[in-house]
Amino acid sequence: MDSVKNYINENKDRFIAELIELLKMPSISADAAYSQDMLNTADAVKNALEKAGCDKVEICETPGYPIVYGEKTIDPALPTVLVYGHYDVQPADPIELWESDPFEPVIKKTDIHPDGAIFARGACDDKGQMFMHVKALEYMVKNNVLPCNVKFMIEGEEEIGSGSLSWFVKNNHEKLKNDIILISDTSMLANDTPSITTGLRGLSYVEVEVTGANRDLHSGLYGGAVANPINVLTKMIASLHDENNRITIPHFYDKVEELSQAERDEMAKAPFSLEAYKKALDIDEVYGEKGYTTTERASIRPTLDVNGIWGGYTGQGAKTVIPSKAYAKISMRLVPNQDNHEITELFTKHFESIAPAGVRVKVTPHHGGQGYVTPTDTPAYQAAVKACQASFGKEPIPVRSGGSIPIVALFEEELGSKSILLGFGLDSDAIHSPNEHYGIFNFLKGIETIPWFYHYFVNK
Amino acid sequence: MDSVKNYINENKDRFIAELIELLKMPSISADAAYSQDMLNTADAVKNALEKAGCDKVEICETPGYPIVYGEKTIDPALPTVLVYGHYDVQPADPIELWESDPFEPVIKKTDIHPDGAIFARGACDDKGQMFMHVKALEYMVKNNVLPCNVKFMIEGEEEIGSGSLSWFVKNNHEKLKNDIILISDTSMLANDTPSITTGLRGLSYVEVEVTGANRDLHSGLYGGAVANPINVLTKMIASLHDENNRITIPHFYDKVEELSQAERDEMAKAPFSLEAYKKALDIDEVYGEKGYTTTERASIRPTLDVNGIWGGYTGQGAKTVIPSKAYAKISMRLVPNQDNHEITELFTKHFESIAPAGVRVKVTPHHGGQGYVTPTDTPAYQAAVKACQASFGKEPIPVRSGGSIPIVALFEEELGSKSILLGFGLDSDAIHSPNEHYGIFNFLKGIETIPWFYHYFVNK
Repeated sequence: MDSVKNYINENKDRFIAELIELLKMPSISADAAYSQDMLNTADAVKNALEKAGCDKVEICETPGYPIVYGEKTIDPALPTVLVYGHYDVQPADPIELWESDPFEPVIKKTDIHPDGAIFARGACDDKGQMFMHVKALEYMVKNNVLPCNVKFMIEGEEEIGSGSLSWFVKNNHEKLKNDIILISDTSMLANDTPSITTGLRGLSYVEVEVTGANRDLHSGLYGGAVANPINVLTKMIASLHDENNRITIPHFYDKVEELSQAERDEMAKAPFSLEAYKKALDIDEVYGEKGYTTTERASIRPTLDVNGIWGGYTGQGAKTVIPSKAYAKISMRLVPNQDNHEITELFTKHFESIAPAGVRVKVTPHHGGQGYVTPTDTPAYQAAVKACQASFGKEPIPVRSGGSIPIVALFEEELGSKSILLGFGLDSDAIHSPNEHYGIFNFLKGIETIPWFYHYFVNK
Repeated sequence: MDSVKNYINENKDRFIAELIELLKMPSISADAAYSQDMLNTADAVKNALEKAGCDKVEICETPGYPIVYGEKTIDPALPTVLVYGHYDVQPADPIELWESDPFEPVIKKTDIHPDGAIFARGACDDKGQMFMHVKALEYMVKNNVLPCNVKFMIEGEEEIGSGSLSWFVKNNHEKLKNDIILISDTSMLANDTPSITTGLRGLSYVEVEVTGANRDLHSGLYGGAVANPINVLTKMIASLHDENNRITIPHFYDKVEELSQAERDEMAKAPFSLEAYKKALDIDEVYGEKGYTTTERASIRPTLDVNGIWGGYTGQGAKTVIPSKAYAKISMRLVPNQDNHEITELFTKHFESIAPAGVRVKVTPHHGGQGYVTPTDTPAYQAAVKACQASFGKEPIPVRSGGSIPIVALFEEELGSKSILLGFGLDSDAIHSPNEHYGIFNFLKGIETIPWFYHYFVNK
């Protein structure tokens, strides 16, 4: 096992080159224009798993994009690790804010990444992190140190709600049977501060449409006399938070897990500099729910954010129109015990109820997922702790993340398995943003850490 | 003068064909992509004025799009009518809602226009209405019944604030000297209910930009902890109206002209069916400032409407982003005595003041214009009344319009002239909307009425 460092040193240029090829493929699941690229990417992942040493790899058809499944069985009597990841990426827009082509990866040094980082859409989320597991498998197989069985399940719809994965998991309990699920799709605190994600927020994502008159109107002739769907939409959205930035949807907080002061004190020990945080974002002040710290607001508290809004004339110059329709995409991050279906229903009912006369409102659910909490007293979690100690020389800090991997709760429900969220990205990696990147250090450190996890998971 | 009906009957097919050629030209002043089309349209207007009998026609250069100026002088001792119109049109979007190409005019019958209407961008606003004056001149010149001098001033920036016209008027007092300005860029109540517009609202149009963090953020990692510019923008815009739909900008109403109950009673006599209004727009209820009727809200009261809003992800599917920026285009319709510069300043100051910590706000004024009221006791207004009686067989009703022609107040200030707003469009003509159209009846009735105005203006 100590050979992992040498193996990485000897092969790192190839590892990076292989990842770069994968990153060139624009596998944007949200946009149907890229559906052929999605299929090509699934093929590329299949090939990578075969080369890394899986003895069986399949492209599994689903109602949507295919899932790449691979396995390497050493001995059916040994435990099985199921690796989950995704090959789809977020859309690249706003494209004009990228400093290089999102699908022409470049390596650049940054303050945080003095060894260089790969800039490309999906570099961190999740191609780079998923590919660490492929390369870790390659190392273990080639060096005969794989201590147990392994299965890979790499999906193509994580960025749009994992609809097909959910169908696949429900229909393949036997195939996916495992002892622990290992996922790298989260971040760690800093390159010298390893951490393991112990909680994820759930998600409810909806699109709303407000319709006024049956056609666009001249704002001079009709202004002030009929409901303007944009004005109404802003009023409706604004009313969803009160003056303390608490969400006003009735019963929204009913099931929210309230942490004890002791738990909050424990959380507060994680290193965090508000000044550095504000400086990195170039903001003069943070903003959020009264009575909670920034770290708490971004992890243990639910949120409601508008992710997109549009309506009326948005071109150059001025047009005096009252549009017929206005739209918004709204997502809510949920915390443990909040059920995303229930929250979507509460939102829909409330949003419809606050529509004034003169407009019609339509709410369309996009996708959702439950939150998740990883217990820290299990052998699997302890194996992850030891793995980080082995590679980083430091004990990792347990951290509640604000993000969502909706499928994790489903894994537990359907497969009865816990998940270990062992991520190597940084919050500053700009995932979902222009100029997403992934540190070379992080990529290689992930490949180094993963075999240690297998080792300690089997040799408890 | 009684020959006008015959002349129209003999030439109407040609009139319509000529207008259709003009409507094919996409003279969209708001979009620089159409700048060559703008110049071509100015040329076409020049040619039309020459053919109609002007003895001097010029394309006058300005800092922006040119102004077409033409004149026909009978006798310097006689009065001069200055005709104002514009050859630019509104953008056509949302293009997908047009039933035919906005720049491929088609004639279709509708319930309101049993004789047919020309469907095209600019059909009514203002190419169709402007062209009536060209054809009326042709009739008067060819039949030797032009009773006075006439000047034409047709601009290309009405839809974007008339910036260059303002410059042109200020620099050409002598050239533009006149006794009355005649404008057809408004509407009448119905084809069997002629009306003359006696008031216009002013306009202040601004664009606002709200900036949060220096880059788009992942809503899972940052949601709830930093200001989301869209959420903030909706809150800021929502706060601009109170629960009675009154505008909350301090001092906004200070100079608003308050009509007496007698004046409001007089206004209420104009035919108006709230049921028909709601049915035409397919809305279950009207919406507006408490304490005022629909007609009042759309004419004698100021408004604040969002004409466009955008920010974040607006494509297909879902993207969990907190954008760095959100934008809106906001216009305020103003009533007599409200100064548009002052209102723009009040808006800017107030909007900046309500920005919460955590965001930066930028307000950019687009354009504006003062409101206007036409006195009804002048010979010119009375000439318009008699002209309508001659062509419609009915006395026209004086009506305050909610629209704005910002230049009208400037004409009075710079040239000392009053304007007569003799429009022949209908509110249902969908100007500024998809499927704009102009009734054949209205087009021809305008050509018939205009010579009568000249007649009664000279022969008081």
